[in-house]
Amino acid sequence: VRVSLAGVCRTDLELVKGYMGFAGVLGHEFVGEVVEGPGDWRGARVVGEINFACGACETCASGLARHCPRRRVMGIQGADGAFAERVAVPVANLHRVPDGVPDDAAVFTEPLAAAFEILEQLRVEAGARCLVLGDGKLGLLVAQVLHASGARVLAAGRHREKLAILERLGIETVLEAELRDERWPLVVEASGREEGFRRAVALTRPRGTLVLKSTLAESGRVALAPLVIDEITVVGSRCGPFPPALEALATGRVAVHPLVSLRLPLARAEEALRRAAEPGVLKVLVECG
Amino acid sequence: VRVSLAGVCRTDLELVKGYMGFAGVLGHEFVGEVVEGPGDWRGARVVGEINFACGACETCASGLARHCPRRRVMGIQGADGAFAERVAVPVANLHRVPDGVPDDAAVFTEPLAAAFEILEQLRVEAGARCLVLGDGKLGLLVAQVLHASGARVLAAGRHREKLAILERLGIETVLEAELRDERWPLVVEASGREEGFRRAVALTRPRGTLVLKSTLAESGRVALAPLVIDEITVVGSRCGPFPPALEALATGRVAVHPLVSLRLPLARAEEALRRAAEPGVLKVLVECG
Repeated sequence: VRVSLAGVCRTDLELVKGYMGFAGVLGHEFVGEVVEGPGDWRGARVVGEINFACGACETCASGLARHCPRRRVMGIQGADGAFAERVAVPVANLHRVPDGVPDDAAVFTEPLAAAFEILEQLRVEAGARCLVLGDGKLGLLVAQVLHASGARVLAAGRHREKLAILERLGIETVLEAELRDERWPLVVEASGREEGFRRAVALTRPRGTLVLKSTLAESGRVALAPLVIDEITVVGSRCGPFPPALEALATGRVAVHPLVSLRLPLARAEEALRRAAEPGVLKVLVECG
Repeated sequence: VRVSLAGVCRTDLELVKGYMGFAGVLGHEFVGEVVEGPGDWRGARVVGEINFACGACETCASGLARHCPRRRVMGIQGADGAFAERVAVPVANLHRVPDGVPDDAAVFTEPLAAAFEILEQLRVEAGARCLVLGDGKLGLLVAQVLHASGARVLAAGRHREKLAILERLGIETVLEAELRDERWPLVVEASGREEGFRRAVALTRPRGTLVLKSTLAESGRVALAPLVIDEITVVGSRCGPFPPALEALATGRVAVHPLVSLRLPLARAEEALRRAAEPGVLKVLVECG
């Protein structure tokens, strides 16, 4: 695939810090054009799922290819990523991008799919109250996906200007410091901070559900007793399904353009990673094509 | 309630180490006779649920009285426990013991209810494969409850003689050191050891469920990334329903007599706590009456 645009993800910043011990080309969010491969794919504008499964094992056969124990993961584990002119992706992982979705929206398919994963794992009833912790890129997508699914969302974060993006979309927000002590039946931890888990547990009500979306390089000191005492269910949540993400981009149910902070050419990819780590910066796109 | 027999629980040993900061009479597993209270209860042989709820708050109204934020917990938090001649228990918490259940079985109602709690929280299909980690008192009860519910249980522990109790009941067992690398769709962590959580996560298969039954005074260094990567669901599980526990004791579906290691009189309660902490010792009963 000749890469047009690639996005910097928080996971890239963790990988730089040593998460997964990955050495290779980073980048797992991209949109591009198929330039080599089967004839019916050539020329297609595509996005690609990042887990390269073996397709032959018991896990793959059970429908959990994203969890294939022999998988390689683009830009994360055993496979070079998309901060490059070209990236190699198995045909099985490709999805065509609908015509109405421009490149700078399509490049959000992968993180948006990760937000939709929550709806694959949990039944979220219409009107269900949920709290999304974290106003980073993933938090803003999760809040929108839950809101679009009919849940009553409160998004909590540390940055007024990031929360304002959600406010403009009709989603209620609050500064973390002003969050009341109230506990929630459903909490999504997307703050990407080590202390986020503790905070999230304290904000989940007894018998409630806490969805973990942050992957951190570090292990933290975590007290597990509160999970037992309050009988909290913690649901780890990673990559998700591309079709609902592409559909949400095509219908405009989720707004991604307000999340783009800046674009830099491939030659300045290192700068892109540095800038993405700055407070206040949301999505940094790398122009590869 | 005039206490006849009380049982020492691992939580008592954690409380002695400082868990919950409790100062008061320990003991939350007991059987006894009502000696003061409403006429229709007087003389009844009873066991008692340990969470003393306010009965008036939103949590109580929602049917989660065991999670009442204003609760006192017998022998654990704000209420004296049962290592005593008499213990005060709200009438709402009492359950009559069926005639066929002797005191030394009835005293297991509380921990057995905690094992049944898993079936309240999860649907365990007949034939479902599950791994129970820990051959302490709670692990042996959990393995029996899951086995009786139709699951295919493997119980892993460190003590041949404790595992032998389950073997005699037709439950498959294995020494932890001989456990293969295989991962399980359902794992119950009942080892009561700090490293138990890490081990349990590694033994839970992607998208699998890990039930946490151990409450530990300490917080441990825990890597949360594996929960996210493997999309594991962690279910904290604490106190459970008394009726199915009493029913299992009455019908003999669960065997508790093999779990009794020794009985000591109330005057030797401190010794009872010490002995309960010794390796190889299972339930220590305190004769209070």
